[in-house]
Amino acid sequence: MRILGIDPGSRITGYGLVEKQGNRLIHLDNGAIQTRARDDFPGRLQIIYRELCALIEQFRPDAVAVEQIFVAKNALSALKLGHARGAALLAGVNADLPVHEYTAMQVKSAVVGYGKARKEQVQQMVKTLLNLPEIAQEDASDALAVAICHLHSNPLKERLTAALSRR
Amino acid sequence: MRILGIDPGSRITGYGLVEKQGNRLIHLDNGAIQTRARDDFPGRLQIIYRELCALIEQFRPDAVAVEQIFVAKNALSALKLGHARGAALLAGVNADLPVHEYTAMQVKSAVVGYGKARKEQVQQMVKTLLNLPEIAQEDASDALAVAICHLHSNPLKERLTAALSRR
Repeated sequence: MRILGIDPGSRITGYGLVEKQGNRLIHLDNGAIQTRARDDFPGRLQIIYRELCALIEQFRPDAVAVEQIFVAKNALSALKLGHARGAALLAGVNADLPVHEYTAMQVKSAVVGYGKARKEQVQQMVKTLLNLPEIAQEDASDALAVAICHLHSNPLKERLTAALSRR
Repeated sequence: MRILGIDPGSRITGYGLVEKQGNRLIHLDNGAIQTRARDDFPGRLQIIYRELCALIEQFRPDAVAVEQIFVAKNALSALKLGHARGAALLAGVNADLPVHEYTAMQVKSAVVGYGKARKEQVQQMVKTLLNLPEIAQEDASDALAVAICHLHSNPLKERLTAALSRR
């Protein structure tokens, strides 16, 4: 099962592609979509949407995993984040992929085994679990973490999907 | 020049289509996209996105106008609104249409002539300007108002577009 994890942001959107083969996690790709250069906001959303669509086209993941957000610094940053997150969710649903949302606590629990783990612990664990040569860029690391969270959380779903795809 | 005005919301997204011929404003369509029935959030965004794409396909507007938002009741409602607004902006930019944003004050000034007009005054003026049989549904009326705002704000741009399309 192959997962596209996304960490949306209005300036930087991190992504990470992880595949699970048996009990092994395999890192396929990660990166950060930069939108700072564009100053028109609709244009920024289009960059996020198009780049994620291109990644889905290239890697053909089975599902998309995005961190669920309940709070933000303030209403204005929440509004901007919401736009970026909307673009990310749309890239998933418009490609007919199931979109799963996980809270930060679920992601930390799945990756580190402790829901209140510090950011650095999560980054270190992502590096270890995926055999990365070094810690990934912050947003990309968060995206890989949510992808790992989905793969760890859904062993039953994964087996079902695998069984159906073998038919 | 034909404008699709949008008033995005996570539960109801209003839309309105207005055309300007010479000095006349012509009402083409208005309505509200309901997403309450769906409880999965990505699915709601997809409904907004797809219905707006279908309207763009059907009416082929020259541009999209959306109200610009700076404040919201709280961070959570701002986050939800941001998602819906992101879907609306994407429907516009993905159809290669220019997307214009106007503040509530700009919309009120353009429609009523007074930036602090009450909601009911705006609704009444939209009805009068477009010769509607009755006041449109609230969100649809707001969408018509932002479309009218764009048409009133851009006489030069409009003449240019018209001149180019006559070539």
